[in-house]
Amino acid sequence: MQLTRAADYAVRVMIHLATLPLGTRVSRDTLAMATEIPIHFFSKVLQVLARARLIAVHRGASGGFALALPAEQVSVLRVGRRSKVPSLSTFVPCMAPVAAAKDWCPAHLVWLEAQAALTQVLKNASIGKLAGHAALPRQGKPDKVVYPWN
Amino acid sequence: MQLTRAADYAVRVMIHLATLPLGTRVSRDTLAMATEIPIHFFSKVLQVLARARLIAVHRGASGGFALALPAEQVSVLRVGRRSKVPSLSTFVPCMAPVAAAKDWCPAHLVWLEAQAALTQVLKNASIGKLAGHAALPRQGKPDKVVYPWN
Repeated sequence: MQLTRAADYAVRVMIHLATLPLGTRVSRDTLAMATEIPIHFFSKVLQVLARARLIAVHRGASGGFALALPAEQVSVLRVGRRSKVPSLSTFVPCMAPVAAAKDWCPAHLVWLEAQAALTQVLKNASIGKLAGHAALPRQGKPDKVVYPWN
Repeated sequence: MQLTRAADYAVRVMIHLATLPLGTRVSRDTLAMATEIPIHFFSKVLQVLARARLIAVHRGASGGFALALPAEQVSVLRVGRRSKVPSLSTFVPCMAPVAAAKDWCPAHLVWLEAQAALTQVLKNASIGKLAGHAALPRQGKPDKVVYPWN
């Protein structure tokens, strides 16, 4: 997957829902406020997550949005991949399988390895774990923070 | 950096120049043909590499494009970073330093770690090494190929 704004927003929604007691339904407005996602992106993000069956949409007076499955079972990679970004080979033609044997693409395996390194990190990070750490006080300096998933 | 089409193209040019004897000047047409970069992107790619002083542009009858420095000293990361892509935090707001302490961004360090994993691979891959392997016969199946930079 590609690191994108859409993936960022989708992950925010998932983590926020995962910080709440299981089964909690959250209104659209509350979710928008908590995640600070620009309003013109917000409907799209929810739509994508609902279509991917990562969140459940409950209608009616007591309705709202909730996680559709346990957060520990959902990786950041899974959420990111569902965020409707074109496949990476659209961005990097040299990553496409057909490029492997092309004279203009000796870097084919480098791009693939870079992509694999990126996805491995996102695969290892579960929404559940991140939500568990969301309540802890955090500092503005990332280099002073111990990586919580180690 | 982001994996992009622009980075792919810039790396292709650098590798092709690196496969040639030091100091060789290549015409624009030859370079375009060898790298198979779409013509509407090509001028931009050369411009970016020249501005970054990664390639030298020689005018006149015996002019052409050549590497501006030894290929072994240039990593794929360095070329990719110069390919005029907006910084990644433009794409992923949660990666920006200011996001570290925000309640909506518990994934801050995950995005950074993913980005670091990606850039490490590209940093370790030198244009010179890739050019050295470019002349070797390659197969269409990447999983049968030994990673040349190991």
